[in-house]
Amino acid sequence: MSFTLAIDAMGGDLGVSMVIPGTELALKKTQVKGLRFLLYGDAPSIQSALETAPLLKACSEVIHTDIIVTNYTKPAVAVRNGRKSNLGMAIDAVRDGRAHAVISAGNTGAYMALSKVLLKTLDGINRPAIPAILPTTSSHGRTIVLDLGANIECSPLNLVQFALMGEAFAAKIFNIDRPTVGLLNVGSEELKGHAGVQEAFQLLRDMSNLNFHGFVEGDDIMAGTTDVVVTDGFTGNIALKSIEGTTRFVRHILQTCMSSSWRGKLGYLIAKPAFDRVKQISDARYYNGAVFLGLRHIAVKSHGGTDAIGFANAVGVAINMVKSNFIESVQARLTLLQTQQEQLKIDQAARAESVDVLSTKESPEPI
Amino acid sequence: MSFTLAIDAMGGDLGVSMVIPGTELALKKTQVKGLRFLLYGDAPSIQSALETAPLLKACSEVIHTDIIVTNYTKPAVAVRNGRKSNLGMAIDAVRDGRAHAVISAGNTGAYMALSKVLLKTLDGINRPAIPAILPTTSSHGRTIVLDLGANIECSPLNLVQFALMGEAFAAKIFNIDRPTVGLLNVGSEELKGHAGVQEAFQLLRDMSNLNFHGFVEGDDIMAGTTDVVVTDGFTGNIALKSIEGTTRFVRHILQTCMSSSWRGKLGYLIAKPAFDRVKQISDARYYNGAVFLGLRHIAVKSHGGTDAIGFANAVGVAINMVKSNFIESVQARLTLLQTQQEQLKIDQAARAESVDVLSTKESPEPI
Repeated sequence: MSFTLAIDAMGGDLGVSMVIPGTELALKKTQVKGLRFLLYGDAPSIQSALETAPLLKACSEVIHTDIIVTNYTKPAVAVRNGRKSNLGMAIDAVRDGRAHAVISAGNTGAYMALSKVLLKTLDGINRPAIPAILPTTSSHGRTIVLDLGANIECSPLNLVQFALMGEAFAAKIFNIDRPTVGLLNVGSEELKGHAGVQEAFQLLRDMSNLNFHGFVEGDDIMAGTTDVVVTDGFTGNIALKSIEGTTRFVRHILQTCMSSSWRGKLGYLIAKPAFDRVKQISDARYYNGAVFLGLRHIAVKSHGGTDAIGFANAVGVAINMVKSNFIESVQARLTLLQTQQEQLKIDQAARAESVDVLSTKESPEPI
Repeated sequence: MSFTLAIDAMGGDLGVSMVIPGTELALKKTQVKGLRFLLYGDAPSIQSALETAPLLKACSEVIHTDIIVTNYTKPAVAVRNGRKSNLGMAIDAVRDGRAHAVISAGNTGAYMALSKVLLKTLDGINRPAIPAILPTTSSHGRTIVLDLGANIECSPLNLVQFALMGEAFAAKIFNIDRPTVGLLNVGSEELKGHAGVQEAFQLLRDMSNLNFHGFVEGDDIMAGTTDVVVTDGFTGNIALKSIEGTTRFVRHILQTCMSSSWRGKLGYLIAKPAFDRVKQISDARYYNGAVFLGLRHIAVKSHGGTDAIGFANAVGVAINMVKSNFIESVQARLTLLQTQQEQLKIDQAARAESVDVLSTKESPEPI
């Protein structure tokens, strides 16, 4: 099997000096034969960086773009003026079949907006979402939380679609039959929360093929109460960053307490392999290489602040998704989840709710 | 100094069998002379529980109520029919000066709604909020987050008022001059987030006496970036429970990793005092004995699932607040924070926005 990946060579805080070594690293590590790369951005900079990336140089094509999308480009501006940019051209290569997946570490809002317009969403989905995979204390060991921040304001229908996409994603990557789905709220009783989550609750409860658990609370995320946790992008982003911050906090006090007495220091030295394991589990870079869930093609977002190793991981995520026919699996699952009648209802609501990507409310926000 | 506390004797998951021993314990531990208690609820049950609480029996009065507010009572129903209930009568005792503070472990929504109606809010405040005090890695070591879930939907004006109340609370309990205030959002750039947080940002930025830091993100909470973190009750509740869940998760994997090898077990035994210290810091029952911030009198909420020790702590919080003239300090600080012009603007907006407590949107939600 041979395939092609479109790379936004200018994305991320470090740009071309991180993306090119990162892609070279991915090429070294992967076992896939016949990989080809399309590199989009400022040609002189890319060609200069390729001098120290011989493997990539041998199997890539550089496509120069005069327009560059930066971290400060607003999503609506990217959609209006960014089709011929590094990001727009890379996405376009996937749309017209010249590449199998696109990877960028650039501006999330611009990437999401351009991807939505150029790649379109799956049947029954009107907004893509960004999922995060978190470790949990449950027997299953992992949970998917979405949306991570692509959609700051969500309608009940958006939440229903996130539930369906999350279920399909969990079924695929955890390889389980009927993933459980929870809706994040301030309490588990039906009466709790605002009108939006209550309406989404009713819609989800009525879906006969969905294994809907009901409302879950913030502490259910890391307890792994359900395989999927659904929330709007504002709450999801804040919950996930709070989780990151808490992990850092606990590690910090652990370090402080261990190093403040001879017993602590000695115990640490003896148990070091165990401490290293704790660090590995709690320090995982959960978010790198997140897919935009709900698009008709594979678009992978790398963390903007990542290094070459992190970017290589994101390239690896894209390769695995292409190899496993990710999009076809998710679309098939979405079809399976909804009865014809439910599908019709959701489609109608989606059409009624759909507004132009350039309006304020619809524009995805950078995370 | 002698003073009186009004106790809802029926509140909490364990009710009278937890509240009476808890109050007895508080009485044993406190050094305050001349304490008196008014105990509201089902008189026969209270009197029976008092048989094993000799100290409390000697300095309390039991007031029987036929109506009992339960965990299932809706806030609007509590306001309509609950004035003569265990909870309503206890709050009423504070209102008419027979008690200096009220403490309940009962239904948060009902407690908040009744307190708001009976005790009224401070000048310039139209909704009370529940703050949480969290440990952080900053030099300061603690931060205040509000709202914890009393107000599920918040206007920009509510967020501004939470900022002022949080600042006044931080100045008082941390004893610092100019506490810094952050507004929780999905990014620190001014353009990020929904219209509500953007509008609150503009209002806060223009307040000349407020030490406003700008937007903060989820991971800034435990990093202690600011002394106060302001958010709506939906997001705040989910962020705080996510933090609780993450603490439990990290402790769980720590335990698992330490106990899965002989080196881990030995290291744990040697460093046990250090581990105990970590547990103590990360396990703190942050939420117990939270005050309803913004009321004209002291109303303390104990966690519903607490035991006698936890309830005794909540009684202790109330005693400290009475002793330190908490309400007067906060009101004075609120006046100081706002220039006359700003005060006028906030007052006008508050009046325009104020709606009846019985309407759906205004009713506080149980947490």
